[in-house]
Amino acid sequence: MTSSYSNSPCAACKFLRRKCNQDCIFAPYFPPEEPHKFANVHKVFGASNVSKILNEVLPHQREDTVNSLAYEAEARIKDPVYGCVGFISGLQRQLLGLQKELDATNADLIQFTIQGSSSLGLGHVDHSHDFYNYPSNFEQ
Amino acid sequence: MTSSYSNSPCAACKFLRRKCNQDCIFAPYFPPEEPHKFANVHKVFGASNVSKILNEVLPHQREDTVNSLAYEAEARIKDPVYGCVGFISGLQRQLLGLQKELDATNADLIQFTIQGSSSLGLGHVDHSHDFYNYPSNFEQ
Repeated sequence: MTSSYSNSPCAACKFLRRKCNQDCIFAPYFPPEEPHKFANVHKVFGASNVSKILNEVLPHQREDTVNSLAYEAEARIKDPVYGCVGFISGLQRQLLGLQKELDATNADLIQFTIQGSSSLGLGHVDHSHDFYNYPSNFEQ
Repeated sequence: MTSSYSNSPCAACKFLRRKCNQDCIFAPYFPPEEPHKFANVHKVFGASNVSKILNEVLPHQREDTVNSLAYEAEARIKDPVYGCVGFISGLQRQLLGLQKELDATNADLIQFTIQGSSSLGLGHVDHSHDFYNYPSNFEQ
């Protein structure tokens, strides 16, 4: 038997038990040695929807598309209720927590600046307005 | 004609042109007045996969499940390449930026504490340059 890697059907065609042609849209992104990648996206999105999305984007965007679909699919399989939306909520919580911590630290810093400069006899140095200029587009 | 809201088929059954029974798994989560919610999840995941996922989770988890699926689907329709994974990357970048800013602010605070306690009133303390080190990578 002389079958080589290049003659192997891609993971998608193997999974779907169909012939893998040279123009197979899945082949470049679903190599036979990663069967779970296709199984996951197939389970969550369906092969037909994945194929539709791949045909909708530009060829150079297909790898990123497949990777983001595989990421979402894996997250949904691990957490059927929230999928990767659970990560988004977690990150948003972390961001809010960090922003609060930063605000508190900046408030301490301002306090130090006011106390430090007045006791140094240098008069009032006003940087305070800069500290609060956080972009308002942090929270979504 | 005496059809009332409660007799209307849900958005899913209307979309799929089928009879909406009392035990329809979609009906509680896809009201007829939100046709896009179902159209989106159907386009991205397929009605059959959505139904499978809903049957896989506990009844009290179904609303959250549908909402997270609808969120993912909308994100994928808006951005076919990255979908909501694009949000995750953006949030991670923001988080890193904020963490760097917090580290820098904490370093300033330590500097102040050391200088303030050891040389209060003894000379010029230059901390002004640190205050303006806002990361430039906040905006995506």
